Amino acid sequence: MKFVIIGGDAAGMSAASRAKRHMPEMDVIVLEKTEDVSYSACGMPFNIADSARDIDDLVVRTADVFRKKQGIDLLTGCCAEAIDVKNGSVSGTIDNGDSFRFFYDRLLIATGGRPIIPDLPGFDLPGVVALKSLADGRRIKNQITADKVKKTVIIGMGYVGLEMAEALRARGLSVEMVKPGPDLLPWMPRELARAVERELDVNQVELHLGCEIKKIDPTADHLSLVCNDRTLNADMIVVAVGIEPNSRLAADAGIETGVGNAIAVNPNLQTSDKRVYAAGDCADAYHVVTGQKAWIPLALRANRAGWAVADNVCGKSTQLEGVAGTAVFKVFDLEVARSGLSLAESRRYGFDPVGVTIQTRSRAHAHPGSETIWVHMIGDRRSGKLLGAQMVGREGVAHRINAIAVALHNRMTVAGFSQADLAYAPPFGPVWDPLLTAANQLVKKLD
Amino acid sequence: MKFVIIGGDAAGMSAASRAKRHMPEMDVIVLEKTEDVSYSACGMPFNIADSARDIDDLVVRTADVFRKKQGIDLLTGCCAEAIDVKNGSVSGTIDNGDSFRFFYDRLLIATGGRPIIPDLPGFDLPGVVALKSLADGRRIKNQITADKVKKTVIIGMGYVGLEMAEALRARGLSVEMVKPGPDLLPWMPRELARAVERELDVNQVELHLGCEIKKIDPTADHLSLVCNDRTLNADMIVVAVGIEPNSRLAADAGIETGVGNAIAVNPNLQTSDKRVYAAGDCADAYHVVTGQKAWIPLALRANRAGWAVADNVCGKSTQLEGVAGTAVFKVFDLEVARSGLSLAESRRYGFDPVGVTIQTRSRAHAHPGSETIWVHMIGDRRSGKLLGAQMVGREGVAHRINAIAVALHNRMTVAGFSQADLAYAPPFGPVWDPLLTAANQLVKKLD
Repeated sequence: MKFVIIGGDAAGMSAASRAKRHMPEMDVIVLEKTEDVSYSACGMPFNIADSARDIDDLVVRTADVFRKKQGIDLLTGCCAEAIDVKNGSVSGTIDNGDSFRFFYDRLLIATGGRPIIPDLPGFDLPGVVALKSLADGRRIKNQITADKVKKTVIIGMGYVGLEMAEALRARGLSVEMVKPGPDLLPWMPRELARAVERELDVNQVELHLGCEIKKIDPTADHLSLVCNDRTLNADMIVVAVGIEPNSRLAADAGIETGVGNAIAVNPNLQTSDKRVYAAGDCADAYHVVTGQKAWIPLALRANRAGWAVADNVCGKSTQLEGVAGTAVFKVFDLEVARSGLSLAESRRYGFDPVGVTIQTRSRAHAHPGSETIWVHMIGDRRSGKLLGAQMVGREGVAHRINAIAVALHNRMTVAGFSQADLAYAPPFGPVWDPLLTAANQLVKKLD
Repeated sequence: MKFVIIGGDAAGMSAASRAKRHMPEMDVIVLEKTEDVSYSACGMPFNIADSARDIDDLVVRTADVFRKKQGIDLLTGCCAEAIDVKNGSVSGTIDNGDSFRFFYDRLLIATGGRPIIPDLPGFDLPGVVALKSLADGRRIKNQITADKVKKTVIIGMGYVGLEMAEALRARGLSVEMVKPGPDLLPWMPRELARAVERELDVNQVELHLGCEIKKIDPTADHLSLVCNDRTLNADMIVVAVGIEPNSRLAADAGIETGVGNAIAVNPNLQTSDKRVYAAGDCADAYHVVTGQKAWIPLALRANRAGWAVADNVCGKSTQLEGVAGTAVFKVFDLEVARSGLSLAESRRYGFDPVGVTIQTRSRAHAHPGSETIWVHMIGDRRSGKLLGAQMVGREGVAHRINAIAVALHNRMTVAGFSQADLAYAPPFGPVWDPLLTAANQLVKKLD
């Protein structure tokens, strides 16, 4: 059995390692176009924040470990360019100029995603950076260390943009953020978003909302980001407007793509061609709340899907449950978390959503060190089901959201969730956990 | 409608307030034997830890607020002594020596629990204290403040004993702990318990395990705790060997008691007499994992049960789901949490339990500030169901356990739980959440 994997990051290497563990005799070939495999991409902003840390700290396992200890044919510098599903082969170019063609019994496409770069003038100038590969991270760190950067602008205010804002402030740089839309974090209610805005303000990150971006101009020793109503100067411009799936290779081979142009997979992670699997940021998933396809590229799913592909390839049928869209990120000293649908998403999927927003405390009555926690919780009026929740606070947010994720996997009603026996001790929360207080109020509104 | 409530703490006052909100015209009479109502009993150790805080900080609402703002007939200093279920009345003594008798249409027994005091010589000496009422807390603080205490001994190593150990060390006192059993926290595996032991050791709390306690002797200016093999001197001895339900009043009235001598209630919180409800630490509950009765006295359940009684009394039929036995406590800088059954409890209830213990990190690969997290997770070999989990760590434990609690409410299998879409960001955990790593390993063992 020959198992070929395109892409040597989270999904690809998880699949390769697990397949080799299951069946050591299996021929497992990984084609990776860069030289870096198995690194913590999500850790890059935090690494950039710290001048003392080497970017290579983020490498979890080197290519040599995969090759020598695990017996995986890991071929770096190999860019796959075409899949021939009829004959079962992948062909492409090695970075020394040679070409390759590998036949497969089973193929995994784990090509990941890539940062969206607006198709506008100047986005290819030196000093305009995006954060995807370890090489990107290295380049950004080198520029900062070389003392070439004082002023930065971040385009986009998603979680990568926000994490980069914290990282660049930690390096003593000035940070401005800009986006065309009118709202910071539009998927959460304004009360929660305002808490994040205040945190950015306190940390001297200036926000420019509602700015249509026209182009980037080079100046004598700067870059100029030209918007409809203002021009921002910077030594470095970070583009963080989102990612898109690397699905062209699959689409060109006639493999079906769907939501967000991601590769469509069934619960077994099979594509429209049953010998070809897809996993990671290039593939879609079922959403546990909507039951429909969703494209929510996150690291846990990539790892989990890689494992499931290996199981299936090795003959252990494994179906993945859907995703709940659980995410957490840090904005300076704030924790921001979500799981499930937002109010707008709930409407879009045909629910009759009702939301409540509460403000409570992170510790018990009179316990010192207590901080504000905001919870937004959404339920469906027709079914009484929980649809999602969002939280913001200085402590007690990041892991609390997991209770919501598990509730969504179980299609709980809000009333059912409100009866959950959650933990209580004065240093960790009020008797009524913030999530229960929100659920109690939402039950009343749904009545 | 006349609704009489015996006991003015969490369950009793929750029921009284909610009944008045539902039906302002209802006659709600609360009989409380002390002068203190609605205070955070769980907050006492943390308050004792801080000389600058007044013990009355723990009062959430004063009797006057309940009386004047909410219109509750709150009678403090009224000790209920007999219930006449046939005629529907409660009689007792007021602390001025008068007696009372109130007729009820519905009665709530919310008499709580009381610390177990071993029936051994010397446990009634001054300086031997237990932690139940606000008056107990006040007495302990006064003794410490009066500088009469240097050496303390705590009998019992449950969460109240452990929280008191931290509190007394924070006040600069020497602390020794003693118990007859051979193990600290016998419901968790030794690997987790050892982490707690090390934390106590680092904080100079000396443990005496396996000591049979004989008596307390008064000495010239000390107390002497005499055990079978050693004698410990102290200025203050804290008795924290557990609590028992105050169910005698109910039992004397012919109301059924059950597990742990707690008052037996159905999911509507009704006792064996349909006009009489019980809630809080004096009442039992169904356990969501065993489906059988359990007595797990905790604050959230008391508040929730109080509300449910009020709903039922006011004609809104409300059934409570069971408890999962979720608990969390702090031992100096460690967070210790559990939900569901321990391995021994699982066996006792007829399951075929399989446990795994893992050690992982609180933050992502290479993220600074990472700490060890231990997880013990238990599943049932026959059904594949999750039975419980326990965690210990310096961060990321207290709220993570809630995901387990919600899973237990939903009777999830370990395999089902292992697919949960939990939150990930480098500052808050590894890609595979500690609970998922444990579940993944347990799935393999259950296979």
